[in-house]
Amino acid sequence: MRIATYLVDGRRQTGLVSADGLTITPFILTPEQADKGALTLIETLAEGGKLPATNGAVVKVSDVALDAPLPKPRRNVWCVGRNYHAHAKELSSSVFKDSGAKTDEWPIVFTKVPECVVGPHDEVLVPSDISQQIDYEAELAVVIGKGGKNITRADAMDHVFGYTVVNDVTARDVQVRHSQWDMGKSFDTFCPMGPWVVTADEFDGTKTRVRCWVNGELRQDGPTENMIFDIPTLIETISRGITLYPGDMIATGTPAGVGMGMSPPQYLKAGDVVRVEIDGLGAIENKFI
Amino acid sequence: MRIATYLVDGRRQTGLVSADGLTITPFILTPEQADKGALTLIETLAEGGKLPATNGAVVKVSDVALDAPLPKPRRNVWCVGRNYHAHAKELSSSVFKDSGAKTDEWPIVFTKVPECVVGPHDEVLVPSDISQQIDYEAELAVVIGKGGKNITRADAMDHVFGYTVVNDVTARDVQVRHSQWDMGKSFDTFCPMGPWVVTADEFDGTKTRVRCWVNGELRQDGPTENMIFDIPTLIETISRGITLYPGDMIATGTPAGVGMGMSPPQYLKAGDVVRVEIDGLGAIENKFI
Repeated sequence: MRIATYLVDGRRQTGLVSADGLTITPFILTPEQADKGALTLIETLAEGGKLPATNGAVVKVSDVALDAPLPKPRRNVWCVGRNYHAHAKELSSSVFKDSGAKTDEWPIVFTKVPECVVGPHDEVLVPSDISQQIDYEAELAVVIGKGGKNITRADAMDHVFGYTVVNDVTARDVQVRHSQWDMGKSFDTFCPMGPWVVTADEFDGTKTRVRCWVNGELRQDGPTENMIFDIPTLIETISRGITLYPGDMIATGTPAGVGMGMSPPQYLKAGDVVRVEIDGLGAIENKFI
Repeated sequence: MRIATYLVDGRRQTGLVSADGLTITPFILTPEQADKGALTLIETLAEGGKLPATNGAVVKVSDVALDAPLPKPRRNVWCVGRNYHAHAKELSSSVFKDSGAKTDEWPIVFTKVPECVVGPHDEVLVPSDISQQIDYEAELAVVIGKGGKNITRADAMDHVFGYTVVNDVTARDVQVRHSQWDMGKSFDTFCPMGPWVVTADEFDGTKTRVRCWVNGELRQDGPTENMIFDIPTLIETISRGITLYPGDMIATGTPAGVGMGMSPPQYLKAGDVVRVEIDGLGAIENKFI
């Protein structure tokens, strides 16, 4: 199942995407429910309820503006730093300089505010008066279905509702100078997400490929098999003593190839277009302005 | 004005505390509105609305169970690390070892999940299977009233709705080993808050005193005049490029005297009682179990 959130005449709707990815059939929801996007459905299912009916009024994907499938996550998005070895290496003397030498021991986990989420084709604001080092991070995001605490690795995949694509946009200078990263990751519009959520029964997040292009130039290309901490380990780690809730999101880290890791570093500027694609999920493409 | 949230027969209510702090008069709110506590009133006022009427059914504070004034903040609570010089010094070789030498240049800002907030007299769970280094941090928390982005120092105080008391409970070993702090700060029940919100017209957060006792022994005693980054600077910094919303909370950092800074370190264990008091706001007192 693929669930998309989209705008029709400025009103948010949530619907089921067809197998060919060309059309969407909206679920019958109240305006308040539709406004929460896929989060409404995830919470309903987690409470033991059923998916609402669809209304049969099929729309073409090309006729609507897709929004983020979870336009406002229930709380800050959990994000993982340094989860691919090649990326750990490319930023070892900058971002990860003070993060301890033992890359494999514990994951680095920080957050992004829910309000920085934007749609898969929305514009991203470059805060040029605050940062001169805007960077992209192509990432697979896990969406939690069934909540829980102290979830074991063995049970973890039962708690996954589905997956989506995010660009964990980052102001490197702000990230580093505050030593904790939440601010440098949370500027308005810094979390493009989409194009939809694909449920776990139709997609294997542990065996896919994350790619990123800047103005058509391939910059990142990493298989998720290369994650240092795999998805079950991330869920086990974050849920230790901390209850996870339906709709919680975990961005699982970015492969090598970020702008800061290039020589010399190549940061984003107004006019750049960044495309993130994950095989089996789809692509998001955002212009930076 | 002092606004308290409290439970009557398991139902959450929000009311106005009397000048002597002994009674509360509930506002007339729907159950959904009352459930959000003071956040409902803050959002109403920020939208240009008026405070709802009170219903005249006065209750004694001693007859009800106080809850956190914002029982579930709208998103992760912003928290400031290393904001008093003496505290910066006591943890300089441990928590702040990798945070850069220049204490005065930029504040360290991290977050706690909204769901770890508990009431001013609730029990705090010691996750003894996960951490052996549970610590307290007495803090003044600022509650944002009027939202905004790129708020200047000069305008910052116009955005403050009021203040409350929090204990930024921390699992030191978890905080340090993940290098980013959000997880070690976000265990269930790790943010006791209360006893109420005092509005900015009745309380000066820039000139007060934060104290903490463990089992009756005074451990922390710091004037807020000693903050490295004062409240206007914190609001200016966090709102640079990041929109702040009504009800956002900023915990402003803790004075010297935390358990990790003692020689040898004194961590909390089940049975301990931690009291945090701020002159002019009141006290919270929580048993660790």
